[in-house]
Amino acid sequence: MPLLHDDRLFPADPDTRAIARRLYATVRDLPIISPHGHTNAGWFASNEPFPDPAKLFIQPDHYVHRMLYSQGVRLEDLEIGKPVISDPRKVWRIFAEHYFLFRGTPSRLWLDYAFQEQFGLTERLGAQNADLYYDTIAEKLQTPEFRPRVLFERFRMEVLATTDAANDPLQDHQAIRDSGWQGRVIPTFRPDSVVDPDFPGFAENIVVLGEQTGEDTDTWAGYLAAQRKQRERFKALGATATDHGHPTARTENLSPEVCEQLFAAVRENEADDEDCEIFRAQMLTEMARMSVDDGLVMQIHPGSLRNHNQALFERFGRDMGADIPTPTNYVHALKPMLDVVGNEPALMIILFTLDESTFSRELAPLAGHYPCLRLGPPWWFHDSPEGMMRFRETATETAGFYNTVGFNDDTRAFLSIPARHDVARRTDCAFLARKVAEHVLEEDEAFVLAQDLTCNLVRSAYKL
Amino acid sequence: MPLLHDDRLFPADPDTRAIARRLYATVRDLPIISPHGHTNAGWFASNEPFPDPAKLFIQPDHYVHRMLYSQGVRLEDLEIGKPVISDPRKVWRIFAEHYFLFRGTPSRLWLDYAFQEQFGLTERLGAQNADLYYDTIAEKLQTPEFRPRVLFERFRMEVLATTDAANDPLQDHQAIRDSGWQGRVIPTFRPDSVVDPDFPGFAENIVVLGEQTGEDTDTWAGYLAAQRKQRERFKALGATATDHGHPTARTENLSPEVCEQLFAAVRENEADDEDCEIFRAQMLTEMARMSVDDGLVMQIHPGSLRNHNQALFERFGRDMGADIPTPTNYVHALKPMLDVVGNEPALMIILFTLDESTFSRELAPLAGHYPCLRLGPPWWFHDSPEGMMRFRETATETAGFYNTVGFNDDTRAFLSIPARHDVARRTDCAFLARKVAEHVLEEDEAFVLAQDLTCNLVRSAYKL
Amino acid sequence: MPLLHDDRLFPADPDTRAIARRLYATVRDLPIISPHGHTNAGWFASNEPFPDPAKLFIQPDHYVHRMLYSQGVRLEDLEIGKPVISDPRKVWRIFAEHYFLFRGTPSRLWLDYAFQEQFGLTERLGAQNADLYYDTIAEKLQTPEFRPRVLFERFRMEVLATTDAANDPLQDHQAIRDSGWQGRVIPTFRPDSVVDPDFPGFAENIVVLGEQTGEDTDTWAGYLAAQRKQRERFKALGATATDHGHPTARTENLSPEVCEQLFAAVRENEADDEDCEIFRAQMLTEMARMSVDDGLVMQIHPGSLRNHNQALFERFGRDMGADIPTPTNYVHALKPMLDVVGNEPALMIILFTLDESTFSRELAPLAGHYPCLRLGPPWWFHDSPEGMMRFRETATETAGFYNTVGFNDDTRAFLSIPARHDVARRTDCAFLARKVAEHVLEEDEAFVLAQDLTCNLVRSAYKL
Repeated sequence: MPLLHDDRLFPADPDTRAIARRLYATVRDLPIISPHGHTNAGWFASNEPFPDPAKLFIQPDHYVHRMLYSQGVRLEDLEIGKPVISDPRKVWRIFAEHYFLFRGTPSRLWLDYAFQEQFGLTERLGAQNADLYYDTIAEKLQTPEFRPRVLFERFRMEVLATTDAANDPLQDHQAIRDSGWQGRVIPTFRPDSVVDPDFPGFAENIVVLGEQTGEDTDTWAGYLAAQRKQRERFKALGATATDHGHPTARTENLSPEVCEQLFAAVRENEADDEDCEIFRAQMLTEMARMSVDDGLVMQIHPGSLRNHNQALFERFGRDMGADIPTPTNYVHALKPMLDVVGNEPALMIILFTLDESTFSRELAPLAGHYPCLRLGPPWWFHDSPEGMMRFRETATETAGFYNTVGFNDDTRAFLSIPARHDVARRTDCAFLARKVAEHVLEEDEAFVLAQDLTCNLVRSAYKL
Repeated sequence: MPLLHDDRLFPADPDTRAIARRLYATVRDLPIISPHGHTNAGWFASNEPFPDPAKLFIQPDHYVHRMLYSQGVRLEDLEIGKPVISDPRKVWRIFAEHYFLFRGTPSRLWLDYAFQEQFGLTERLGAQNADLYYDTIAEKLQTPEFRPRVLFERFRMEVLATTDAANDPLQDHQAIRDSGWQGRVIPTFRPDSVVDPDFPGFAENIVVLGEQTGEDTDTWAGYLAAQRKQRERFKALGATATDHGHPTARTENLSPEVCEQLFAAVRENEADDEDCEIFRAQMLTEMARMSVDDGLVMQIHPGSLRNHNQALFERFGRDMGADIPTPTNYVHALKPMLDVVGNEPALMIILFTLDESTFSRELAPLAGHYPCLRLGPPWWFHDSPEGMMRFRETATETAGFYNTVGFNDDTRAFLSIPARHDVARRTDCAFLARKVAEHVLEEDEAFVLAQDLTCNLVRSAYKL
Repeated sequence: MPLLHDDRLFPADPDTRAIARRLYATVRDLPIISPHGHTNAGWFASNEPFPDPAKLFIQPDHYVHRMLYSQGVRLEDLEIGKPVISDPRKVWRIFAEHYFLFRGTPSRLWLDYAFQEQFGLTERLGAQNADLYYDTIAEKLQTPEFRPRVLFERFRMEVLATTDAANDPLQDHQAIRDSGWQGRVIPTFRPDSVVDPDFPGFAENIVVLGEQTGEDTDTWAGYLAAQRKQRERFKALGATATDHGHPTARTENLSPEVCEQLFAAVRENEADDEDCEIFRAQMLTEMARMSVDDGLVMQIHPGSLRNHNQALFERFGRDMGADIPTPTNYVHALKPMLDVVGNEPALMIILFTLDESTFSRELAPLAGHYPCLRLGPPWWFHDSPEGMMRFRETATETAGFYNTVGFNDDTRAFLSIPARHDVARRTDCAFLARKVAEHVLEEDEAFVLAQDLTCNLVRSAYKL
């Protein structure tokens, strides 16, 4: 028996399921467009084999180790944070023993997909077959078929965007271009390190920003000019988008004089928490202005309280599964920015949320009005079958389908990319099938929509 | 093939669908009771033909033009805001070309219903048949069968309430009465212009209020007496309800001395934002007191941030589709008013929301306790199949069915009234059918409930 | 025809229903574990017959009388608050006449279950058979089969926890132990009266706390020591848990010096509202520290605004159905406590909510990370089929099943305990069946999960 059933995630009602099957058959093999994620361009630059199974599946996946940690597994025992895992088989066995914890989670669907589709495994993972899994995966990883570029092509990836700091030299992206390989791997401009005063090394980063661009980043005008130059550098390597992950969605629209003073205060570490928040808020508006000029699509990912677990942060650092969503307001928060750029015809701003209550209350009404706004797919904890279904149910009636932007996987785990897109395609087809079964849509429209949700909307929204 | 399937909005499971069909058959042809909306009494006073298709379907419908605007259509090209549309066929063609944007939205269901049921159209609207639609509709609008009073009767309307400013002379309502026509069209007392200090012309409106009523509206006592007289004037023309659309649900219970001072401040434009909010809050409690005395049903519609798009507001004015919901608190906000009138046996207050998270958390618990409170139907962005279903799912278990008040369409678009009530009846039957299929209700109870939700609850809640 | 159908609460789709039936068959007769509730230990100490039907079903059940009150029934007519009901048959008739109000509510399911399973009634309650019901129930209540201990055994109760004030002498619990009866009835430590400065008699309660424990509760250190001794006293009578029902989830982590001052202020009634809130917040952290040491499981039930109806509170006192949920924040609120104890391996903190929007946004992400956190079942207004289903749908994908703790009934109504557990078992099986039908889980896993959700998780979470 395979790990995954061909009808998974389709509605149980037989007629509705049949519609979902028909829709899915037309999108299953479409190319994967991945306009937002956190994979490593170096994989494709060097095309080296991926390391051992633990390093591949467990260490970088905070969905996986947060669940293990929540049930008492020590991060030390998983060798989290170590550059090289000393006993990867032992780490794998711990994971295998606890695999039942993932029942009902999207991680289970993603992992089983990779196990089955990429490694040919057919028996559910558990303590009893941990070594079989480990050996099978470890062996395949050393074969030519598992080199990153081969996988990229086997996955039918049309484009893959990484996420890169503003000052990143992007040498891996340059190396990919120089190599002559045709895979389209592009950077995304992520300026946290030079727009967030609370980012470690913020003042030094501003200095480097000036050095890299030849602008005088001691002044507000020079600082903005430097940001524009960095964005151009990203564009030259294929970037079509920027990404902004602030604690809140707050924006501001301050005078240049106030900005100048605020910029001095945050650089000299004389700003309090509120000043820092205002500075970040102002920078969203500045980035929107730059996007009007240079055409980069703006992604806003607000509302995560990072590193909630102080003790764990001190021992293991960032991204340890302790980022927790908070209530997020968009209506008042975005107004200053929208007052400036909201009606710009060529601007594209994609909004994400970790607070589902905003889909029907704020995000769909905003995106259903402002020409520059689109809704990103369900993000992070909501990148799951139930989360995706709630998104369609709560956003579609007000925003329609065409103010959404298709799926993006937002993953660090390269092998999970096909799995995640497959879950999204199946869930969208399940939603469309229900709408057809309930005669809200005709089936011919659902076929068009399935194509649009899978490929067309993401291509147009991200200008790909 | 018709535009609309007879089984639309019914559950896909065959047995459940069969129950829904049986229930719907008993309510499909019941009279339409429309106790809250924004149609124009003048239509029925003059009984003139409706104008061209664009003026009828596009210009007044902010659901329609907000969606077009969100996808880059300019409001100028739709001739929004013009008293006469110079090229209605061109406007209609733009609409037709973009009709696919409404897939999955309630607007699509409402429009298709009108196209099919009222104009006999059977082919889905698109660029290719824009002129066919235009000509068919334009022609029929000139026939006697499409005069407002004929439609009112054909729609089996038992009662239609409009919404009218406190100082409105109500001459159209008087003219309807004087005409001898038997259609029951009644006004609703909407006092924003004389209770909201932020309303344009507030101070002047207070002067007019005094002139119309012969009360001294320079004093708090005279102002309240004038409000009471206006309410009596509305009652004399058939009104059974008042309507209050404040930015928040806040209420206050201040002493008469404080009210006197606050009233002076807001009249003389010496009040700050907080004072204005407090004044509105106090006026909800005053209006509740008046309702205890005169029996008018009180409707509270809070939580919309009006005119969010500043540039559009400056060019086109109000009601341009840029009103956005905000998080709304009821539990603390309503307490001052409920402390005064919450246990009055004859009082009826109907609560609405644009913040769905309040249904299970606040509104159903409040309405499931206070004798004066009832829950209004899903409002505005939630007046949709998914929104209605979520309302029943989240409110019923705590408030029961009998603390809800049936459906009201809240529409400006007269032709969409039958469509909206049809969607509500189908969705309620779908919900009831599921409850019968899951043996939470017996089918005989569901038949009673279907009648209650369609007619009996609205008649009793609105004292019709 | 029976009152309740054997397939109630199962999905309508035939294949999915068949899976649900198979799952339910394996858990229907499992023992009832009730680790949190508000029944009266005195019933089992004295083993006296329950009184009349009105006293049993109506007077203590705020779900019942709040619904009647919301529809205009006067609490006086229900003899609410009277120690002895003078005309219980009349009260019962009022209830029977209004029984239709409960259509679609969980109360209806619970009541019908008790009527059918415990009293053999088969005809739906209404005005026409009120006396038949009354006489049948009244007669049976006098038989030996309806003595509390016999019912306890017939219900297959493995354990029943009551909720008891910190200073409660627990003589009923002692009497049960002394009686030699083997039923496991245990207390739960609920310290509101000695940790909440707003609790009536707070200062006096602190004095009694000192007297009972021999500690000097005039000092912060002595006060904490006294709390520890009381907890030990509860443990000695079988308690495994504490319970904390604060207005918010706020916690604090103040220095002992500040605590000392704050404690003096709240004891001497010199604290303002904010001080009282901070004191309660600090005490959650103190209680968590004590739980680290003594192993008592900590339950946090925040977010109810108690006694919202001031007039009713003044006439009838607490628990009159006027407690209303409020928006509740956990992410910032719990951080001070979690900074202290969040990574303690042996600590168990169970979180509840009345604000469903927190399940996916805050609670599942927190419980899916912190080893000490688990999610309690849907509580109060959400202890209902739809509420339970939404809980599983919104929490499972992020927290998994194994960071939840099974069901607890939280009831004052002893006869409703089997009904409530039955609703929970059916709803969990319905959810699992859907996941199996959609191939997210394999059926063998669903059978394991059904056992875990019914018995194993609650046993381990509550250390039973």
